[in-house]
Amino acid sequence: MSFHPPVRTLMGPGPSDVNPRISEALARPTIGHLDPMFIQLMDETKALLQYAFRTKNELTLPVSAPGSAGMEACFVNLIDAGDTVIVCQNGVFGMRMKENVERIGAQAVMVEDAWGTAISIDKVEAAIATHPDAKALAFVHAETSTGVQSNAQTLCQLASENNMLSIVDTVTGLGGINVDVDGWGADAVYSGTQKCLSCVPGISPVTFSPRAQAAIKERKTPVQSWFLDMNLVMGYWGEGTQRSYHHTAPVNAIYALHESLTILKDEGLENSWARHTSNHTALKAGLEAMGLSLIVNEQDRLPQLNAVSIPDGVDEALVRKQLLEDYSLEIGAGLGQLAGKVWRIGLMGYSSRPENVRLCITSLEAALLGQGVELTPGAAITAVNASYAD
Amino acid sequence: MSFHPPVRTLMGPGPSDVNPRISEALARPTIGHLDPMFIQLMDETKALLQYAFRTKNELTLPVSAPGSAGMEACFVNLIDAGDTVIVCQNGVFGMRMKENVERIGAQAVMVEDAWGTAISIDKVEAAIATHPDAKALAFVHAETSTGVQSNAQTLCQLASENNMLSIVDTVTGLGGINVDVDGWGADAVYSGTQKCLSCVPGISPVTFSPRAQAAIKERKTPVQSWFLDMNLVMGYWGEGTQRSYHHTAPVNAIYALHESLTILKDEGLENSWARHTSNHTALKAGLEAMGLSLIVNEQDRLPQLNAVSIPDGVDEALVRKQLLEDYSLEIGAGLGQLAGKVWRIGLMGYSSRPENVRLCITSLEAALLGQGVELTPGAAITAVNASYAD
Repeated sequence: MSFHPPVRTLMGPGPSDVNPRISEALARPTIGHLDPMFIQLMDETKALLQYAFRTKNELTLPVSAPGSAGMEACFVNLIDAGDTVIVCQNGVFGMRMKENVERIGAQAVMVEDAWGTAISIDKVEAAIATHPDAKALAFVHAETSTGVQSNAQTLCQLASENNMLSIVDTVTGLGGINVDVDGWGADAVYSGTQKCLSCVPGISPVTFSPRAQAAIKERKTPVQSWFLDMNLVMGYWGEGTQRSYHHTAPVNAIYALHESLTILKDEGLENSWARHTSNHTALKAGLEAMGLSLIVNEQDRLPQLNAVSIPDGVDEALVRKQLLEDYSLEIGAGLGQLAGKVWRIGLMGYSSRPENVRLCITSLEAALLGQGVELTPGAAITAVNASYAD
Repeated sequence: MSFHPPVRTLMGPGPSDVNPRISEALARPTIGHLDPMFIQLMDETKALLQYAFRTKNELTLPVSAPGSAGMEACFVNLIDAGDTVIVCQNGVFGMRMKENVERIGAQAVMVEDAWGTAISIDKVEAAIATHPDAKALAFVHAETSTGVQSNAQTLCQLASENNMLSIVDTVTGLGGINVDVDGWGADAVYSGTQKCLSCVPGISPVTFSPRAQAAIKERKTPVQSWFLDMNLVMGYWGEGTQRSYHHTAPVNAIYALHESLTILKDEGLENSWARHTSNHTALKAGLEAMGLSLIVNEQDRLPQLNAVSIPDGVDEALVRKQLLEDYSLEIGAGLGQLAGKVWRIGLMGYSSRPENVRLCITSLEAALLGQGVELTPGAAITAVNASYAD
């Protein structure tokens, strides 16, 4: 029997609501992955990704698998067995980076910060001082598990000053906040489609600097993954009209990505960032009017992902269940050591709209009132409205 | 600017034409990858894949990436550095298996057969005799590069009798010919969605026998790919309602796969195989009436993928270009050592229809006449009609 999904409002950590223009593009007629028209689409998609990443990097393309594979693509192409990698960890995804490093047979030197805080530049400098021969510095720009952003500019600069490659996770960043690959001098950056691009999940934009691309071409050992070997992928996503078959591209997913990037370019990066900030500010006003607080310091907050402390005595899973069942509204649970301690409210891409902020705030208020939390009914939506009126 | 693909008829080696029911399912509203409704969809999809693969294997699921990643998932989970794997090669994909084995640090013992011929059982027996300690026997059931099928039943039996795991590529097989995972006693089998399932490209159904699953659980070293580690993927695609987050599933692609498998089940496996055979027979009649021949012996032919010899003096690329430009019809080029020597005409899934056979035969006739090939105009379509009338 065919499956008909419910219509949700997606305000968790991703996927976000898919723009109807993107769903429509996704369903367009499939063409061959070596069709001349598809080659043209690939070229356009590369150019649009270069715009989104703010880079001139030639090796900029979507990996044909989710963000986790984008992460793995960066590590397996740049790191070899025996290498040392400095890995910053302040949430779930830094831990996953460590897994990637170790499965290559390389050594991960961990720089740990509390979950919900930004990466400490001092600690990274200390790690570089004690491991000056490290091959790379890897960190998460936008931590999806905590809602914190770290200073990618400074971290990439530290890496390049010390002759290390920088590997940057901005799965949740791209399109929602400034991702400035060339400005940062970042070497390998990966993202996801299902966050601030509001595209369907399943593929992962990546970009490699000329320095990283050279490192890949000059490898002495083969990349341990055939599927993710950029030396081979380059032959398919490369320049010119002659493309050598590597794997079958997810044709329809590329239609969707192309459409999502077209929407982003039409809006303009700066306008998209401003929209994410504006909706975040309104959400925060509503949350604070209910006595709720965000776990991240104001200056390090991701506007697109809000980790909210669960008030004492509240059954957080019941609240999420009620929002899903009563309002068809998804918000996210905490992950890892924040499980049970926070909700994660996403305002990403097409989900980042005033009507969603209003829906979230009013339904959350109803759920909290239902659990006997003391708050002034209506104060939250009043604060939201005031924020938008500013 | 939005991209609007041309409407093609896809009769290459894949992707095949996507059934409109599947495109429509693909565009349904995205829900969260941990939504209770998505968990239900995952369970239904597993059950449908078990039907398609003819297996009771619990570890049956779609890998969130194309068939090449499905291949890699089988190898990296079952093979360790230092292992020996007997790899049969009679086309492009056996060569890719060798790449996979070697990138794990294992040794590939190659059993080579001419491209376009089935795997020689005698040669495999000889390789097993000289390498009795091999961990696995890997082979391609349905070679997409040549259109040949090999005897999976006998090969899997040889593997299990000799205490080896069997790893089977049936990317092009599933849904088009008999794939009988439990009947064969196969241990690890992977396929693709964009061939006889007529779904969009991008994900790869896999299934592991209880013996293979035990081997994965008992590994002493971590799987070299975090993304493809079935020990972790099992936690997400496993039993019960509690699913642990691993990566974000390609939600909409799973809608499409579910729909494609529902269509297959509604038609029935045997009916689908019979349809593929019937259209193949008609195509073959038309080709032969034009003096063209298939490169594979009759008993080893894949009905869904027909490798046709290029007649002397014909500019094969020009023919493909004309079919694409004049009829919006895609047929495939030769791959690897068959490049320039064959066309590959796919009749897979929704593409396997009498109207497509007629379109292909009549447009191919026009293109060949245009290049001065001597043939009797109209003879080919007459032969096609006669085949269907039988």
